[in-house]
Amino acid sequence: MARNTQVSADANAPPITQILANFVANHPSRGWSDAVDHEAHRTFVNWLGCAVGAAHHEAADAALAAVQMLQPAAQASVLGRSERVDMASAALINGITSHTFDFDDTHLKTIIHPAGPVASAVLALAEGLSASNAASGRPAITGRQLIDALVLGIDVSCRVGNAMYPDHYDRGWHITGSTGTLGAAAACARLLGLDAHKTAMALGIAASQPIGMREQFGSMTKPFHPGAAARAGLMSALLASKGFTSSPKALEAPRGMMQTISNKNDWSEITHELGQRFEISFNSYKPFACGIVIHPSIDACSQLRTQGVNAQDVQRIELKVHSLVLELTGKKEPADGLQAKFSVYHGCAAGLVFGQATENEYADSIVNRPDMLALRRKVVATVDDSIDEASADVTAVLNDGRRVHVFVAHAIGSLQNPMTDAMLEGKFRGMSDSVLGAQQSIALITAAWGMGQAENVSALAALAQP
Amino acid sequence: MARNTQVSADANAPPITQILANFVANHPSRGWSDAVDHEAHRTFVNWLGCAVGAAHHEAADAALAAVQMLQPAAQASVLGRSERVDMASAALINGITSHTFDFDDTHLKTIIHPAGPVASAVLALAEGLSASNAASGRPAITGRQLIDALVLGIDVSCRVGNAMYPDHYDRGWHITGSTGTLGAAAACARLLGLDAHKTAMALGIAASQPIGMREQFGSMTKPFHPGAAARAGLMSALLASKGFTSSPKALEAPRGMMQTISNKNDWSEITHELGQRFEISFNSYKPFACGIVIHPSIDACSQLRTQGVNAQDVQRIELKVHSLVLELTGKKEPADGLQAKFSVYHGCAAGLVFGQATENEYADSIVNRPDMLALRRKVVATVDDSIDEASADVTAVLNDGRRVHVFVAHAIGSLQNPMTDAMLEGKFRGMSDSVLGAQQSIALITAAWGMGQAENVSALAALAQP
Repeated sequence: MARNTQVSADANAPPITQILANFVANHPSRGWSDAVDHEAHRTFVNWLGCAVGAAHHEAADAALAAVQMLQPAAQASVLGRSERVDMASAALINGITSHTFDFDDTHLKTIIHPAGPVASAVLALAEGLSASNAASGRPAITGRQLIDALVLGIDVSCRVGNAMYPDHYDRGWHITGSTGTLGAAAACARLLGLDAHKTAMALGIAASQPIGMREQFGSMTKPFHPGAAARAGLMSALLASKGFTSSPKALEAPRGMMQTISNKNDWSEITHELGQRFEISFNSYKPFACGIVIHPSIDACSQLRTQGVNAQDVQRIELKVHSLVLELTGKKEPADGLQAKFSVYHGCAAGLVFGQATENEYADSIVNRPDMLALRRKVVATVDDSIDEASADVTAVLNDGRRVHVFVAHAIGSLQNPMTDAMLEGKFRGMSDSVLGAQQSIALITAAWGMGQAENVSALAALAQP
Repeated sequence: MARNTQVSADANAPPITQILANFVANHPSRGWSDAVDHEAHRTFVNWLGCAVGAAHHEAADAALAAVQMLQPAAQASVLGRSERVDMASAALINGITSHTFDFDDTHLKTIIHPAGPVASAVLALAEGLSASNAASGRPAITGRQLIDALVLGIDVSCRVGNAMYPDHYDRGWHITGSTGTLGAAAACARLLGLDAHKTAMALGIAASQPIGMREQFGSMTKPFHPGAAARAGLMSALLASKGFTSSPKALEAPRGMMQTISNKNDWSEITHELGQRFEISFNSYKPFACGIVIHPSIDACSQLRTQGVNAQDVQRIELKVHSLVLELTGKKEPADGLQAKFSVYHGCAAGLVFGQATENEYADSIVNRPDMLALRRKVVATVDDSIDEASADVTAVLNDGRRVHVFVAHAIGSLQNPMTDAMLEGKFRGMSDSVLGAQQSIALITAAWGMGQAENVSALAALAQP
């Protein structure tokens, strides 16, 4: 009953829960550089496009059908669809769709996909609060409030992730969901204007709900993780706002969240430069709808295309990559789109033929096209561990004997070589145009870039529904 | 990225998820002895009384206020109150109230409080389904279906608990919530009539949502754990019913739930005598509203009273107990009701004066009564580790010099000395009479005992609302 076999318990952790709560409740609005604020908008744009793009995926259909059994009130938008549901359910579903294509953002230090839990929670809550405020004559939630909450929430989840990574991830946790609940709770507490005490309670309630196991990768429950984290975080903040209590040491105590789910906890990752360095600065966005180790190879083949190499003229593609690339994505003859996501060969073919590898280039019909099949077979991959995991060395040997060589040190989308804003827009439209139409997609993108100045978040939400 | 530092991963676990899913989906209705079925009713009665009793606790008020922000549909009852909310929110709130007094059931082998997550989920779901069935001309959910689901769901959570206990608990998990999600999902899958495949998916979705850290003990988030587990399990079953997918090895895989949250996993605890031995048989019910180590002392003092000892005649009470009792509950001068729950001294005083220690005897006004204060000071506690933790040796030394001795080997409420059905009714009415009135409480108890024969669960739910 009073047994204690936990040998590594640290009873002297700093008061992390309180420190983070003070930060979230009291940090000034837009209390960061223009660069950070712009990155927050890039994060928001990228997240929104992903959520709209997967709106009609079967995972979204199934989740929405389950939620409809609760006869939800029409408080907030299901992005990319016409349905409206209660705030908490909207957070769930938008969180699911934003991660369904595995095309969302990545905080590379922890492999956290930070926007899913946080942005899904704050947009749904902001919509719901704006509506209820309007009904009682109070002002709407502004875009500024939303961006502030997004930056602070992502800082909380990524800092907690930094503290626990890699042990926590290696143990089996899908770190996006397990830390995302805290990020969503922090962001929603900020949006609700909770004081530091109630913010600590919200973080504490969220701390009892880490979500997600890596075994789920490959099933709908993977994208469920950020969705469920968004929902749980939102509800934790609502509960705290009504006086629900939790341990004020819920994160750091020996039997609190972090020590229970990770043997490594570097508390300084949470406290160091808090309020000065913002983890959202280190967010990255995928240009290609597949695992990140394939990206340098796709980028290289896409550059061959830009240099005038035509797939029909290619006799052979010589690809040199780190062994990890073939270990994870060495599927030479993928049978469908899902398998193609684990095929560096298909990635090379898509890069050369289309100059891109979005969700469209992973359609079964594209993957099974005879020319794509033939081209994949022309890729000769060799392991060279002197090449970094983040790089690729590609040579096209043409039918006329010419050789065209491209070396990619850092693929597009990496921190060293980030996607431009225009590229993010292109990615957005690649997902959104077929859902909302080109014109509305353009309007939605414009609204998203202008979020920090928006008087009412609901205008954007309306544009995200067909 | 492909790092693997998890040394203890067992890649050869039996297919637990599938085994449990087959069991839950296919075990025959009432496929157990009369004794098991009666214990299921005792579990249900005890859970119901606890939930009704705490209906107006401030934790219930706060949780309901948060849920009301979602403008929930009136699908299911908040027990002991007039409000109705959606099924998932009813599962949450009834799960919270059933554990708020810490007066619910205990599966002693694991310290799981099994009814909270499972019964709260199935009653709310049964109510909601009955209403929607009625609207479409289909039959209501019967009490038999509910009792079947309760037995099977509790078997799932307690067996998973048996497999992981004690490491999982020692690590910091509040095992009631972490295993309760699975139990609730199993029970709801059964109630929905899901086949074995979809039941496995429901268990898999639930496996990504273990809930609860022990650090929360003493805050409202402790009872939140069974509530949140009930809600998460119910939603997992609804999602699976609509085609949402999860890993079919979500429980047992190396990076599945169980290996991620426990270093000990004895798979045979799940498979051994599955469908023959039912863990609900080993459920116990607290006669006293405090930690179980105090129970033998209260029981002994209550027996002194039965033997004619009057508090006014007592000069001294000599209490001999195991050291653990004083370590956990050695508070000699409790300032209020909450502190008194950690005072074996108050327990002795309550037993001698009232012959019981329900929530009423832990009211601040009782705890601070001068005669209670004086009596607590007359208790002289001595450590004797030759006495079992589950026993107590008490001698009342009277003013006239007489000594009255009682030794309790197994306190009332233990497996060896269970509460009678009449005692459970008395406990129920001690909580319910002040909420629903005596007459309705009696009717509700009658309905609960008859649940296995009820044509429609909704009749009982209606009686549980004032």
